[in-house]
Amino acid sequence: MTNIKKLADDVRSGNIRSLAKAITLIESRSPDHTKAAAELLDNLLPDTENAIRIGISGVPGVGKSTFIEVFGMKLLQQGHKIAILAVDPSSQLSGGSILGDKTRMEELAREKNAFIRPSPAGTTLGGVARKTRETMLLCEAAGYDIIIVETVGVGQSEITVASMVDFFLLLQLANAGDELQGIKKGVMEIADAILINKAEGDNRPRAELARQQYVNALHLLTPKSYHWQVPALLCSALHNQGVDEVWQMILDFVATMKHHGEFVEKRRLQATDWMWTLVMDDLKELFLHDKNVAAMVDQIQTSVATGITTPSTASRRLLEAFKRH
Amino acid sequence: MTNIKKLADDVRSGNIRSLAKAITLIESRSPDHTKAAAELLDNLLPDTENAIRIGISGVPGVGKSTFIEVFGMKLLQQGHKIAILAVDPSSQLSGGSILGDKTRMEELAREKNAFIRPSPAGTTLGGVARKTRETMLLCEAAGYDIIIVETVGVGQSEITVASMVDFFLLLQLANAGDELQGIKKGVMEIADAILINKAEGDNRPRAELARQQYVNALHLLTPKSYHWQVPALLCSALHNQGVDEVWQMILDFVATMKHHGEFVEKRRLQATDWMWTLVMDDLKELFLHDKNVAAMVDQIQTSVATGITTPSTASRRLLEAFKRH
Repeated sequence: MTNIKKLADDVRSGNIRSLAKAITLIESRSPDHTKAAAELLDNLLPDTENAIRIGISGVPGVGKSTFIEVFGMKLLQQGHKIAILAVDPSSQLSGGSILGDKTRMEELAREKNAFIRPSPAGTTLGGVARKTRETMLLCEAAGYDIIIVETVGVGQSEITVASMVDFFLLLQLANAGDELQGIKKGVMEIADAILINKAEGDNRPRAELARQQYVNALHLLTPKSYHWQVPALLCSALHNQGVDEVWQMILDFVATMKHHGEFVEKRRLQATDWMWTLVMDDLKELFLHDKNVAAMVDQIQTSVATGITTPSTASRRLLEAFKRH
Repeated sequence: MTNIKKLADDVRSGNIRSLAKAITLIESRSPDHTKAAAELLDNLLPDTENAIRIGISGVPGVGKSTFIEVFGMKLLQQGHKIAILAVDPSSQLSGGSILGDKTRMEELAREKNAFIRPSPAGTTLGGVARKTRETMLLCEAAGYDIIIVETVGVGQSEITVASMVDFFLLLQLANAGDELQGIKKGVMEIADAILINKAEGDNRPRAELARQQYVNALHLLTPKSYHWQVPALLCSALHNQGVDEVWQMILDFVATMKHHGEFVEKRRLQATDWMWTLVMDDLKELFLHDKNVAAMVDQIQTSVATGITTPSTASRRLLEAFKRH
């Protein structure tokens, strides 16, 4: 890891092995590697930011892999280079990942202009997201001009992915025994479009009905931007129907947001929000590893749990111990 | 504020003026008062924890005031002493509060065993919540055995209130042009019961239909406790129907949770979670007021926003500046 400048140049030249090596560096937990990774990212930062970042989410079974495969092949035909990354909360538990698996996207996996990377392992969603976000920057520096970050439709991971992309696409099914699947989790508020997949054959009328329900529900929400009414579209990834329209919609979105200055503004906010998330994470680490704090934290936590000390007093004591240096 | 022990004794004796004085101390922002308030809370802590803490939420117009008035009068008749507090996010913006207003609950306001306190002003929801939570403890020490914390059905404030009570009751309307009002905000996951108010007259069949929809939707959620299936009930606060059943349900809940050890366990978790929230808030304050950090934070944030520095490097530099003491 002595020559970061050389590695940066190799990533910039689009060399796949170097990109993989750089990602390994980002994912490493060794302190030396962390420092080298930061240096690498700083070096590459001027070459990022030219890609379009697309988040894709949906529950297992919604057809994410099929959609991304068809969508990705279309983009490749148009001359794009695409990277597919994953933020998968299950990789925290299993060490493995149900997303980003190359065998799920056989066609794409064979294409030299498509780069597929499974979700990094991590002990926290924050850790997984940090690595994915930095991997995204590496891919951009390596010349991938469309980045897809996929996640599963469960809880916080969708909000995390939405905070790192330009456009967040929510895949849904019609009539999965629960018309409200997207609504009940509050994720509709963060979607830039809702796409009802498997709108094919007998399922088409139900999909159209679901689409109308989503349109109605979307009107109840405060829009994220005054310049974008979140659409609900139909698609059949399996039969390659409605996929072109998704890409056209994303291009429209990007053009509209750029026209109104919101594209750059959103990225600025995302970057500073991200900085503050990291600061708070690192600050917490610093605090928990502080010798004085570590010596008393278990006892204080127990006395709060058992009602001997108020949370306020406990907090004040811990902070005073932390400051005592 | 020299004699905290005396004030604590007066609060314990149930003196209303002393309770009001103690709350003013809690709500004060002066550092001297903060210290005295902490001392007071520590003194009173052994006398808290005997009350039942009930959170009540619902959108404006759902009939919260009417319900709390009828519900509260019933509890008073049974010999309880009740305190009604509010966590109102609007009090951050307006300085005033749309909740906890005594004129909204005319009957209760005249009762000597009912204590109504409007939402404290505060610049953040965290600040408002902190004061409300500590006021709750003061009321418990003063002998109020049922605490009602009300909030409005918008965003984070419901989650905040749920984190400080034993039982969280969500009030809903049938057919308010949106059957999904409770569902779309993800708040159903935190409710211990759903109560459809205004189930009266012509509205009754619609209320019954809505109830069935909620029951169906509730079955889709992972239960918070294996020992409690969240019920959906009907009520007409205006006509005093179904209100007794709510109290009976809460008693059942408390008995069931106590039987399985979950009642105490939940309070323990709430207390330690609360401690960590305070620690993180205070740690952030300490960080932002650090001289070295304050001297560079604006410039670093700008360089992150404009893509000159990565969030990781920015975070690392800020932390290094913080540690340089």
